[in-house]
Amino acid sequence: MRFRVKDVDIATGGVLVVILNKADADMLDLHHGDRLRVKKGSRSVVAVLDIAESVQAVPRGRIGCMEEVIDALRVSSGDVVDIVLERKPESIAFIRKKMDGKELTYPETLSIIRDVVGNKLTDIELTGYVTANFVGRMSMREIVDLTRAMTVTGEVLKVRARRVVDLHCIGGVPGNRTTLIVVPILVAAGLIVPKTSSRAITSPAGTADTMEVLASVSIPVPRLKLILRKVGGFIVWGGAINLAPADDRIINVEHPLSIDAEGQMLASIMAKKASVGATHLLLDLPVGPGSKLFDQRRAVHLQRKFAALGKRLGIKVLTMITDGSEPIGNGIGPSLEARDCLWVLENDPRGPADLRQKSIDMAALLLEMVGKAKNNHGHELASRLLKDGSALRVMQRMIRAQGGTPRSPGRIPVGPLSYVYRASRGGVVVGIDNVAITRIARLAGAPRDKGSGIFLHKHVGSRVRKGEAVFTVYAHNAQELRFARDAVRKIDGVRIR
Amino acid sequence: MRFRVKDVDIATGGVLVVILNKADADMLDLHHGDRLRVKKGSRSVVAVLDIAESVQAVPRGRIGCMEEVIDALRVSSGDVVDIVLERKPESIAFIRKKMDGKELTYPETLSIIRDVVGNKLTDIELTGYVTANFVGRMSMREIVDLTRAMTVTGEVLKVRARRVVDLHCIGGVPGNRTTLIVVPILVAAGLIVPKTSSRAITSPAGTADTMEVLASVSIPVPRLKLILRKVGGFIVWGGAINLAPADDRIINVEHPLSIDAEGQMLASIMAKKASVGATHLLLDLPVGPGSKLFDQRRAVHLQRKFAALGKRLGIKVLTMITDGSEPIGNGIGPSLEARDCLWVLENDPRGPADLRQKSIDMAALLLEMVGKAKNNHGHELASRLLKDGSALRVMQRMIRAQGGTPRSPGRIPVGPLSYVYRASRGGVVVGIDNVAITRIARLAGAPRDKGSGIFLHKHVGSRVRKGEAVFTVYAHNAQELRFARDAVRKIDGVRIR
Repeated sequence: MRFRVKDVDIATGGVLVVILNKADADMLDLHHGDRLRVKKGSRSVVAVLDIAESVQAVPRGRIGCMEEVIDALRVSSGDVVDIVLERKPESIAFIRKKMDGKELTYPETLSIIRDVVGNKLTDIELTGYVTANFVGRMSMREIVDLTRAMTVTGEVLKVRARRVVDLHCIGGVPGNRTTLIVVPILVAAGLIVPKTSSRAITSPAGTADTMEVLASVSIPVPRLKLILRKVGGFIVWGGAINLAPADDRIINVEHPLSIDAEGQMLASIMAKKASVGATHLLLDLPVGPGSKLFDQRRAVHLQRKFAALGKRLGIKVLTMITDGSEPIGNGIGPSLEARDCLWVLENDPRGPADLRQKSIDMAALLLEMVGKAKNNHGHELASRLLKDGSALRVMQRMIRAQGGTPRSPGRIPVGPLSYVYRASRGGVVVGIDNVAITRIARLAGAPRDKGSGIFLHKHVGSRVRKGEAVFTVYAHNAQELRFARDAVRKIDGVRIR
Repeated sequence: MRFRVKDVDIATGGVLVVILNKADADMLDLHHGDRLRVKKGSRSVVAVLDIAESVQAVPRGRIGCMEEVIDALRVSSGDVVDIVLERKPESIAFIRKKMDGKELTYPETLSIIRDVVGNKLTDIELTGYVTANFVGRMSMREIVDLTRAMTVTGEVLKVRARRVVDLHCIGGVPGNRTTLIVVPILVAAGLIVPKTSSRAITSPAGTADTMEVLASVSIPVPRLKLILRKVGGFIVWGGAINLAPADDRIINVEHPLSIDAEGQMLASIMAKKASVGATHLLLDLPVGPGSKLFDQRRAVHLQRKFAALGKRLGIKVLTMITDGSEPIGNGIGPSLEARDCLWVLENDPRGPADLRQKSIDMAALLLEMVGKAKNNHGHELASRLLKDGSALRVMQRMIRAQGGTPRSPGRIPVGPLSYVYRASRGGVVVGIDNVAITRIARLAGAPRDKGSGIFLHKHVGSRVRKGEAVFTVYAHNAQELRFARDAVRKIDGVRIR
């Protein structure tokens, strides 16, 4: 059948879509979600059919084409194209199988994930898969398969080393930027640490946002391999190198339903570790009200699952269940957190003691795990590498390798506008609310404005006098500072008793 | 925040959608699927946010508006609108609850179905609900709740009568047009029969398509009530009067995933019966290869479910498990089927014996069920009402009341072009394939062209001589006749041995 193109001037950013008028679709017995091959000369694409009820949107005899279709076929409004009904992707039958409560095989899972990455599935089909996994649960074998499928459908960094070390934190705790201290210590100990991190989605700063204050974090794979050989480690943004890309599309469907399906979460984290060839992984699971894990039992459950999955993938997983009840360090927001980390690496007294201690604990565990230190001697080695400046020198090499220039922490600019929150009464700080602090820092502009955020003068257990500064909010513009200040008045971020 | 409107000249036909550029969305911390209130002067609407990656589709500072938003706000490209983040519909939390494996209460189900009918939910959210019901199963109480929620969110025909009779067939068998014979018999017996039917989706004719050959089937509710009082019954298209409208949107999501969730199917059928106030329902479940139910066990299972659901809703359900292995009657396609039915009502020898017999069986059961005939005397009454012309006279009154003019069956036009399929060998017909016959009739133009379709000269068990006519294909245009003829050559619709 021949149709005349109407350029609808919209991009889906995902699956290719064409639109026919309902009357034409009915005549041809075509339905919403059918696949059509659209041909123009020697070019052709397969697109998903959407149906327009009104003549205004797409009149009879016309085919509405989204930008991606227009570009692929190099057509414009008025051109004539030919359409033929195409079979639906085979993966839809496998989604259906999972919906029927059956276990999927590896080739079936791979077929689904390949089509997810290739933008071949509609929201309805992908939601069917994600919901079936969530409601029907996934077996450990299926999780292993999903991890492998997510890995092989993305970029893979082939690292030739006996031990490749990685770390990961299930977020939720503001300021918890240990990575910028732990990675330099491990590299200083002679380990290979290809650390890919994420940007903030709902937090005031991701590790990638924080590292970006000091150096570039979007670095192509060939250059990463070079850095690994020369320096032994890097800290970059995983999003720039297309590791396990299926994850993003799955999250797009999970987010509107507020689900975080356990099997998919395990697979997406481990797929990224497998993509960089990790052999040893340290997992930080912070537990506390206002962090992602609010009870110990759930943390222990995840610890078991990660260990089992790691075993099947050949990755040794060690888990630390840590205190996630209040922020770690003093700075919250990319620049403020980067400054804290550099102070710790420089052994400056302004380096927050809790951030320093947690980083040493983590590095120590990993050093013992890979055999770089004997049991109970990890702390000694980690502390020494920090104290003698080895870790700082590695960080400086990493910053240079990633296109930055090492600066002293005092020269990292923070937001020019600020507001000091003072105690309305004297007493002891008994609680700092992670959710409230996150909210205030984001309203102040973090992570978009690197220098925006919060600096905590007090932690839980600190004594405060009436009128004394509890925290300072930094911002880059007056409106956002006002938003943050209004929020401070409404929400009780720091409890003093 | 203020944005300038870009009219994207597309209608979704469903939920209201606006589009922002990714950079603007990130700045405002807005995500795909968030709800925004869009205001212009005193008008405002709540729309679902979609995000455009490219500047070409929606540049920064602009808000792409689908037709429905443009119309509701009476804005045009370039106008400035204000946007505010709105809370998501509460029903999404209930969908999430079902996904977590919990049972929903009636108010929760009602909230979801209200938002489905009000076009408040996105494809992702609705698919989450449908998939959770499919994978997680629904309890009988949930099915009852869903039925009630679907009923009250649509049009309800309040019929004041002690007994309101209805019938329903789980389709799949071509030509099975008993309704046009059973309804007149029941009305002739003094019963109230408000019959709403569907149009064909994948079959060559629905009951509504067939009745439309004789009279109008799109009739507003007030007129339907009048017809019910005057005539006692009608046969119309349910789609015209908005009965249980949630069903259509749910099917839109089920279709691409090829699922027909049992609980939802039960609820949607029974909701339509409850909407017309049915007190007694006869259910025809044809079983056979190529019909929807291919084994007896599944039919018995459905029989039990329907009876249980009916009991909770105050509807007495009687089920007939019938032979669905071959087409019923001779004509397949709206006009050809209407002609068969009129022949039966006129006691013309051309009336197909199988169609006549099945119609009498069904009417008899219903007459006994409501007490119009004593046990084992239903056949006697049904046959008499057919033979003495009472049923025909009711049909003629119904046709007139629905704006038609009664005609003799011989004057119903069938497609002007035809092709006769002749036996390539002599023998006995051992099988007629429902799926193949459906395919050929649809290729010939049914149900769009009322006179297109197939006339079967032979049934299973008939003797055929070599070269004798087995069936005739009717069409309205040469191309479609050719399509149908090509299909006849490829697929073996009638097996002779």
